[in-house]
Amino acid sequence: MANRPPASPRPRVAVVGAGFAGLAVAQGLRSAPVDITLLDRRNFHLFQPLLYQVATASLSPGQISWPVRSVFSAQKNARVLMMEVNAVDTRSRTVTDGSSVVPYDYLVLATGARHAYFGNERWEPFAPGLKTIEDARALRENLLRAYETAEKTRDGAERRRCLTTVIVGGGATGVEMAGAVAELANRTLKGEFRTIDPQSMRIVVVEAGPRLLRTFPVELSEKCLSSLDKMNVEVRLKSRVTDCDAKGVSVDGLRIDAATVIWAAGVQASPAANWLNARADKSNRVFVSAALNLDDHPEIFVIGDTCAAMSDGKPVPGIAPAAKQMGAYVAKVIGAHAAQKPPPPPFRYRHQGDLAVVGRSAAVVRIGKISLTGFTGWIFWSLVHVMFLIGFRSKTSVALDWIWAFVTRQRSARLISDGDASPLATSASSDVQLSPRRDNTSQGGGYAA
Amino acid sequence: MANRPPASPRPRVAVVGAGFAGLAVAQGLRSAPVDITLLDRRNFHLFQPLLYQVATASLSPGQISWPVRSVFSAQKNARVLMMEVNAVDTRSRTVTDGSSVVPYDYLVLATGARHAYFGNERWEPFAPGLKTIEDARALRENLLRAYETAEKTRDGAERRRCLTTVIVGGGATGVEMAGAVAELANRTLKGEFRTIDPQSMRIVVVEAGPRLLRTFPVELSEKCLSSLDKMNVEVRLKSRVTDCDAKGVSVDGLRIDAATVIWAAGVQASPAANWLNARADKSNRVFVSAALNLDDHPEIFVIGDTCAAMSDGKPVPGIAPAAKQMGAYVAKVIGAHAAQKPPPPPFRYRHQGDLAVVGRSAAVVRIGKISLTGFTGWIFWSLVHVMFLIGFRSKTSVALDWIWAFVTRQRSARLISDGDASPLATSASSDVQLSPRRDNTSQGGGYAA
Repeated sequence: MANRPPASPRPRVAVVGAGFAGLAVAQGLRSAPVDITLLDRRNFHLFQPLLYQVATASLSPGQISWPVRSVFSAQKNARVLMMEVNAVDTRSRTVTDGSSVVPYDYLVLATGARHAYFGNERWEPFAPGLKTIEDARALRENLLRAYETAEKTRDGAERRRCLTTVIVGGGATGVEMAGAVAELANRTLKGEFRTIDPQSMRIVVVEAGPRLLRTFPVELSEKCLSSLDKMNVEVRLKSRVTDCDAKGVSVDGLRIDAATVIWAAGVQASPAANWLNARADKSNRVFVSAALNLDDHPEIFVIGDTCAAMSDGKPVPGIAPAAKQMGAYVAKVIGAHAAQKPPPPPFRYRHQGDLAVVGRSAAVVRIGKISLTGFTGWIFWSLVHVMFLIGFRSKTSVALDWIWAFVTRQRSARLISDGDASPLATSASSDVQLSPRRDNTSQGGGYAA
Repeated sequence: MANRPPASPRPRVAVVGAGFAGLAVAQGLRSAPVDITLLDRRNFHLFQPLLYQVATASLSPGQISWPVRSVFSAQKNARVLMMEVNAVDTRSRTVTDGSSVVPYDYLVLATGARHAYFGNERWEPFAPGLKTIEDARALRENLLRAYETAEKTRDGAERRRCLTTVIVGGGATGVEMAGAVAELANRTLKGEFRTIDPQSMRIVVVEAGPRLLRTFPVELSEKCLSSLDKMNVEVRLKSRVTDCDAKGVSVDGLRIDAATVIWAAGVQASPAANWLNARADKSNRVFVSAALNLDDHPEIFVIGDTCAAMSDGKPVPGIAPAAKQMGAYVAKVIGAHAAQKPPPPPFRYRHQGDLAVVGRSAAVVRIGKISLTGFTGWIFWSLVHVMFLIGFRSKTSVALDWIWAFVTRQRSARLISDGDASPLATSASSDVQLSPRRDNTSQGGGYAA
């Protein structure tokens, strides 16, 4: 990169993906003398860490999504295109979706990650994950529909199956999901059915490792386990799903019939590595330099969940704060280069803390040497997440919904739409455990459509 | 009905459809010595008069939907089943969805209405209507996606087509939709695009009759026309759509290329008449007695948009207040009969007023002899609709969103989801023009799935 001057009067920066990483790049370049094109297959930025609250009917999709155009309407050096990039031509320096072509001088790929089933892809329709709005809607409908069926059926075994939810993966996604489903059952739905007792619902978390939240400090894992235990969530540690079908799962060969199975056990990067023909790890994350670009194409940066970056000899985790830090860093690198200034020092990830909520008034938080649990942790968690949300309106609206839910135990978005809802798509993550977690994958060129 | 005593210790009342009419029956019977089963194919009550605000990205589906279970959680003589009824057996007195069977002593059918194309059903995929959450989501995505395509394309004709919206039908639905699309273009999207100017968007309303809002007083029609004119909406009166395809419409043979065509020109009742083998009008609305039941089956009531009821020699309009009044009346009839008291006098519809909003701070309202227009009308319209919403939370949330939108011109729900969103379903209405309009069709047994 250093040896090639920008081709146009103002260098053109193409940013693919409007998740946390992509937004941070475009926003970080707001005062730089560059022309930015931000491309995403969706028209909105998704606040993915709260997606599980859409899946459990606490929030509406609109509350955790923000039109990318609105974010950049006042930033005159940025334009937004809704476009699903599926190829990069590194020689002509263009990206394309097959019809439109966008040229670049600098390219930033921040296309996120999707679920992974590690060779068991046939499980996907039965054990969907949670990465997109469609995933969340489908999961919500599946969950609510199962309770409706349970209320109607006269078959005792089928009723038990409908009231059983299995969550595969005991990372932050898994435990938050388990807590949210338990609250839905124990609080929100209480008293609303005539045949079934929502409190008889069974929720099982299956985790292959020896403890929940394995990247968190041990005492937080234990606190989390005891919180889930109080909420009647069964946690099976050192256990593996050995089979999965339309009626349930097998855990170490033992059958659990379940109407809802949620996959929160692994992620795989979007196919940016294939577009670039670049070296990648087994999760398809592109290996990048200390400046987060490619050695042989220094004008190409790969950030967020799409890259396998290192910091101080350790892998950078696949979480929202890391994605934001990478985005801000790349904006500095490009800004310095475009202004012909010396480059910033190599990227360093600063870990801000660990954070997971396991239910109303129960969260586990670790910031530096401080651990917070229970209600204090929950208040802190709520504040952090509301602060993170883009735009005042979403903040107010989400905060009001949470306060309302806390006071009344009601939920605001309990919709089951048409039976022919978008097909269950899939994904999740168990190896990513921070505060606002997971980079947004709203640009996952090549997935869905 | 009078001559047959209830078969069970407490008479069983089955209410099919949880729209305005069905809810009013079940709620009206809250203190009656009966066992109520409320059946709906959805798990939520939909506040259909605000559906066009979901379609134009102002509100989220969750804000105008309310879980039926929540509404009845405290009413112990009512149970709720999510079930899509598709047959009635009047001899065994049961309703069924093909698998479950629900017996009744009294049956109330309140299954609403759907769009109608009057012999041009092939237009349906190109000119969808607006009756369900899926309709609204699909329309919203279509509308927003067209602007995104316009921003990307280099083809001038295609860009103009993407920026053109045609609304078929100049009733309340049509004019409200036109006003909302114009506001989306002129206010919300202003400054967010780099290539297109949202203000160059073309919006056309096609109405077969000689004036808009034909059931309203003439001066309100004229006021509405001038409001739309100020918003640059083209209104074509005495005009008919003569053809419709994937690229646009023909109006009296004249071609208008348009990416979005919205059908707001007619409704047809759900197939309750077929289930009952009952006499019905050309819109398939069941003819009912002055007590809103069937002459040969007095235990069966048909109300809301599903019936062709008369009051004072005039047809009862297909609007929300009428549906509520019918529901409340039938609750009284059943309550009196179950308590072996004399029946109430025949049903009489009380018209409360005419009300339509054509944009931010522009509405037309007629209550008795009072007409309100412009800002005063808009404030009144907002208050009425917020009052109508069930449940405090929805009220607060919708009111906040409107205030927010009024102050900032932003919208809260501008999501384009997957390209494979639910296929464009259809419907609408131009012959129904009151305040909160149209009975809910959430139970439209036989439609969609």
